Amino acid sequence: MQPLLPGDLEHIGADMYGLIARLYPICRSITGEGFRSTMRILQEFIPLAINEVPSGTKVFDWTVPKEWNIRDAYVKNLRGERVVSFNESNLHVVNYSTPVKARLSRDELQRHLFSIPEHPKWIPYRTSYYKESWGFCVSHEVLESLNEPEYEVCIDSSLANGSLTYGEYLVPGKTDREVLISCHSCHPSLCNDNLSGIALSVFLARCLNQTRPRYSYRFLFVPGTIGSITWLALNEQHASRIAHGLVVACVGDPGQMNYKQSRRGNAEIDRVVEHVLKHSGKPYKISRFVPYGYDERQYCSPGFNLPVGSLTRTPNGQYPEYHTSADNLEFVRPEHIVDSFKTYLEIVEALEANGIYYNLNPKCEPQLGRRGIYGSVGGGERGHGFEMALLWVLNLADGHASTLDIAEKAEMPFHTIAEATEILLKHRLLEMREDEAG
Amino acid sequence: MQPLLPGDLEHIGADMYGLIARLYPICRSITGEGFRSTMRILQEFIPLAINEVPSGTKVFDWTVPKEWNIRDAYVKNLRGERVVSFNESNLHVVNYSTPVKARLSRDELQRHLFSIPEHPKWIPYRTSYYKESWGFCVSHEVLESLNEPEYEVCIDSSLANGSLTYGEYLVPGKTDREVLISCHSCHPSLCNDNLSGIALSVFLARCLNQTRPRYSYRFLFVPGTIGSITWLALNEQHASRIAHGLVVACVGDPGQMNYKQSRRGNAEIDRVVEHVLKHSGKPYKISRFVPYGYDERQYCSPGFNLPVGSLTRTPNGQYPEYHTSADNLEFVRPEHIVDSFKTYLEIVEALEANGIYYNLNPKCEPQLGRRGIYGSVGGGERGHGFEMALLWVLNLADGHASTLDIAEKAEMPFHTIAEATEILLKHRLLEMREDEAG
Amino acid sequence: MQPLLPGDLEHIGADMYGLIARLYPICRSITGEGFRSTMRILQEFIPLAINEVPSGTKVFDWTVPKEWNIRDAYVKNLRGERVVSFNESNLHVVNYSTPVKARLSRDELQRHLFSIPEHPKWIPYRTSYYKESWGFCVSHEVLESLNEPEYEVCIDSSLANGSLTYGEYLVPGKTDREVLISCHSCHPSLCNDNLSGIALSVFLARCLNQTRPRYSYRFLFVPGTIGSITWLALNEQHASRIAHGLVVACVGDPGQMNYKQSRRGNAEIDRVVEHVLKHSGKPYKISRFVPYGYDERQYCSPGFNLPVGSLTRTPNGQYPEYHTSADNLEFVRPEHIVDSFKTYLEIVEALEANGIYYNLNPKCEPQLGRRGIYGSVGGGERGHGFEMALLWVLNLADGHASTLDIAEKAEMPFHTIAEATEILLKHRLLEMREDEAG
Repeated sequence: MQPLLPGDLEHIGADMYGLIARLYPICRSITGEGFRSTMRILQEFIPLAINEVPSGTKVFDWTVPKEWNIRDAYVKNLRGERVVSFNESNLHVVNYSTPVKARLSRDELQRHLFSIPEHPKWIPYRTSYYKESWGFCVSHEVLESLNEPEYEVCIDSSLANGSLTYGEYLVPGKTDREVLISCHSCHPSLCNDNLSGIALSVFLARCLNQTRPRYSYRFLFVPGTIGSITWLALNEQHASRIAHGLVVACVGDPGQMNYKQSRRGNAEIDRVVEHVLKHSGKPYKISRFVPYGYDERQYCSPGFNLPVGSLTRTPNGQYPEYHTSADNLEFVRPEHIVDSFKTYLEIVEALEANGIYYNLNPKCEPQLGRRGIYGSVGGGERGHGFEMALLWVLNLADGHASTLDIAEKAEMPFHTIAEATEILLKHRLLEMREDEAG
Repeated sequence: MQPLLPGDLEHIGADMYGLIARLYPICRSITGEGFRSTMRILQEFIPLAINEVPSGTKVFDWTVPKEWNIRDAYVKNLRGERVVSFNESNLHVVNYSTPVKARLSRDELQRHLFSIPEHPKWIPYRTSYYKESWGFCVSHEVLESLNEPEYEVCIDSSLANGSLTYGEYLVPGKTDREVLISCHSCHPSLCNDNLSGIALSVFLARCLNQTRPRYSYRFLFVPGTIGSITWLALNEQHASRIAHGLVVACVGDPGQMNYKQSRRGNAEIDRVVEHVLKHSGKPYKISRFVPYGYDERQYCSPGFNLPVGSLTRTPNGQYPEYHTSADNLEFVRPEHIVDSFKTYLEIVEALEANGIYYNLNPKCEPQLGRRGIYGSVGGGERGHGFEMALLWVLNLADGHASTLDIAEKAEMPFHTIAEATEILLKHRLLEMREDEAG
Repeated sequence: MQPLLPGDLEHIGADMYGLIARLYPICRSITGEGFRSTMRILQEFIPLAINEVPSGTKVFDWTVPKEWNIRDAYVKNLRGERVVSFNESNLHVVNYSTPVKARLSRDELQRHLFSIPEHPKWIPYRTSYYKESWGFCVSHEVLESLNEPEYEVCIDSSLANGSLTYGEYLVPGKTDREVLISCHSCHPSLCNDNLSGIALSVFLARCLNQTRPRYSYRFLFVPGTIGSITWLALNEQHASRIAHGLVVACVGDPGQMNYKQSRRGNAEIDRVVEHVLKHSGKPYKISRFVPYGYDERQYCSPGFNLPVGSLTRTPNGQYPEYHTSADNLEFVRPEHIVDSFKTYLEIVEALEANGIYYNLNPKCEPQLGRRGIYGSVGGGERGHGFEMALLWVLNLADGHASTLDIAEKAEMPFHTIAEATEILLKHRLLEMREDEAG
């Protein structure tokens, strides 16, 4: 595989940010037109398949819910003035609210209002997917200003049989063993969670599409929880092809990278991501798997136990802007998304290059000097560090250690060991045996 | 099994302390009437079997010794005044002293006297079980006052064929796999070591007798070393039924709890005790197994290697009052014994509840919300922590992890995970498979 | 085996230092008369076999090189004065320099000169074994004084078919399982690296020759890299007999001991050396295996993967005097060589005594008291520490733990556990089963 990193990262950063900005106003939910139109926009970038699964379909212990759509919503005072309006922010309506049109006392209304007293200017994001109800989310300042005796409320939504939509795109590789890249795409006007994940995934798919990778890469754009459950239920036999996977979310904020391990904890994906982060030179955090978070909960349920981790910047719930109107176009910045994007590319490159090799001269060291790849007097062309990489690969290439194992034992970056491996292959001092090339 | 913890702990504390006070004056040894009468008093609390093993019985590499009894002992000056008297403290006589009646010079007497110069008011406790000799233990103050030229000594003891006595009580459970609770009961007037262990064991047996536990609980009241060796020799075939065990000693002093691991180091009992202590909120210490201490030396000999640890407060030899007259009714306090007792109860509850369960919906999470045990908007009734416990149990209940494993991975107290397990069992989301219920 | 440590260590220290002083002036290389005459001197101490392997012999990926010999070399100014002379120090000539006799401009000469600007009085040590070239090593002061326009250079060396020489000596043991002691012997006037290693090995061989050890001990005196490769190529079938091995180098400097683990990292030799160093009471360092250093690179190549570590004082490259004329008779001191020698002896003693034993009374403790090896009242003759050693051995001698395992679990020095093992063997409380005695 040729190197993945595109030359012009600034351009890519602007493009990813532009996609986020374009998707930002759309009112997405776990079903409905908002999700569907989002997928259609993604099709401008990658040849995404858009799948529809009818309401009522049984998916393991769950049922695909009715489809939700919304046209308008407001709270008006009796003078007919909109004091809360869906047009201003789609966060104002509790997502999946049932239709309502009524005149209510201030106290009755209050029971359907949600705000964040600690952040009086921010609108919270709330959902009620599996319990039929309705409500409005407002800034605490607005909530406190609602002191008239009666209000008129209207939510012009529908909850009816329809379908659940999800997007899927496969970059075919040399083998049918797959790398899964999954991102939840159901949130309305929230940038970090998870328009940033959608944008990163789309551009990663575009990069990979220009190569012939070793693994096949499956990109899923699904509604959270019900979407991954649905995909797993419809592709149950297929799941075992997934050799590695990452759930992409919250990749545009200024925080450090955070990797949440797969349930296995020591899967190749866990080790590759930790290695890349360790050698990044930047602060990062590794978190153990916990059965809470994003769709890794489903991929890592005990009946699947797939090697799927989640690589974010600041994780869900750990930044104050999380699930509020402050997770906006100012909170995510192109430079952070680009930094996340580069990390994902390095991980892909390491997964692609990680293999098990055999030293073809395992008894004593081969004479590197006469092959011109080891200094006779003094260090070689690339210096002593690279000679050490050659010696490490030769010493450990006994069919038991992967490139990653060698990099970790040598305490060197993966790419140095991978480069040494390439040179030794070229000099026929190493080989990969056929049945392990997959 | 219903919860074990009795409502009125203060009452239990007073009762345990009362039993200690009642047993305190008796001159026990590894054989003889003192041990026998102690067992008879315990029969007032639990239906203890009192077993007698004749002197001379071969028990592995050892032989049951002659029975020792003592009526009186003293050192008199030539004016006929008792300067040392068995009536004042049974510690004054080296335990297992052979009979003697003689007039000795001060120098000859001196060779049979033992004291503790660093604690001039305390009488040491000494024994000579396996080497025939005699002696007196005195406070250093008394020793220094013996400056007359001659003394009369008398030890009115007997060492003759008889038997070794031990007490045994089995609380039957649903299976014949056993939990062994063993305490040495051979020490004379020493409260912490080990009247405290006797009292705790008796009251633990009483609690368990009111339930129908899963395990059978075997309580042994044995003379140290020779008693456990005798029991193991007579019950060699039976020993493999012991699934878990604890040697109870020194549980009434003010020190922190100390758990000495079984020889295995990672047996279930080791992990359960450590878990309970870790979540106790109080300081504690874990010690590795060493082949020195109490009867765990025998239970953990390599030919048995039973999973038996020892849970004490301050261990043998690590408090200055150890094996002296200062290990008295002021040194042990009811509140410390009650605290130890509660810890033992929690351990029993955890052993009883620890099991391996299977998630019956292992593919993706089951929909807890429609079962009313997971919050739809916001946290559920018991809050987010308990929801996390439900998710942890579901995620890890794959037949490989026990309740304890789950509690440790979730970093939650055992009882929270056990409670979540109960609820999921009730909702038929979990099961224990038949052959693993034992 | 009787104890190895000779009574008169001061004498041994002086003898080893004397051997170093005698070998110091000789110009050794990886082949040639200097190496050969060195071996002949060693034959005065041990009955060493001197082997010759013809130039051109294929040894794995390498070829035995032409033999190098040198008679004289100098740089003269045009007044005929030697400004650099081989007679003053054999380090002045780049080892394996091809013959040259020429008149050169100062600039041309400069390209063949090597110095150490940071240490202006020291002559560096350089080699060019596998690339035909020539050069002079000089102190930086001399280099800077060469400011005349032209010089005459002469290297009166020869590079021609001949042979590679190495020395080999086997002390036969009770089994044919071997301990390998290997030291590179190709360096010219450098004392720590590696005349110190040669001297230590010779005197260790002399000590062992006076005993009948359990293992056979193979001593190799080989030219670095090509020598161990040659030995391995000629003894390929034999290599699997090597049960443990050490590469001896840099054992005379004032630094602390440093053990570089074998590639396996947890081989018995690794554990024994670490144990001995840990209980030495002196500072020491353990380093992980890296595929760089001395001949352990070859012994630990993946096709052999022999349990061979390297025990030095300050390792190669980590002291400023390394590979310079400052690695001289003042840098190494008898007391440091003796200290290294004692450490090697302790390691040999531990390898010899390390075995797996069975407790013949595994059920409960045997009654040590009646055998007189355990105190009845108070501690026994050797005190409580030794009684603990007896109890540890009995408790762990279940056929799974070696003497070393027991010493580590007991946190006691190996020799204490070995002594306890001897006593228990004498009392027929332990046995070594036949098939494990090898």
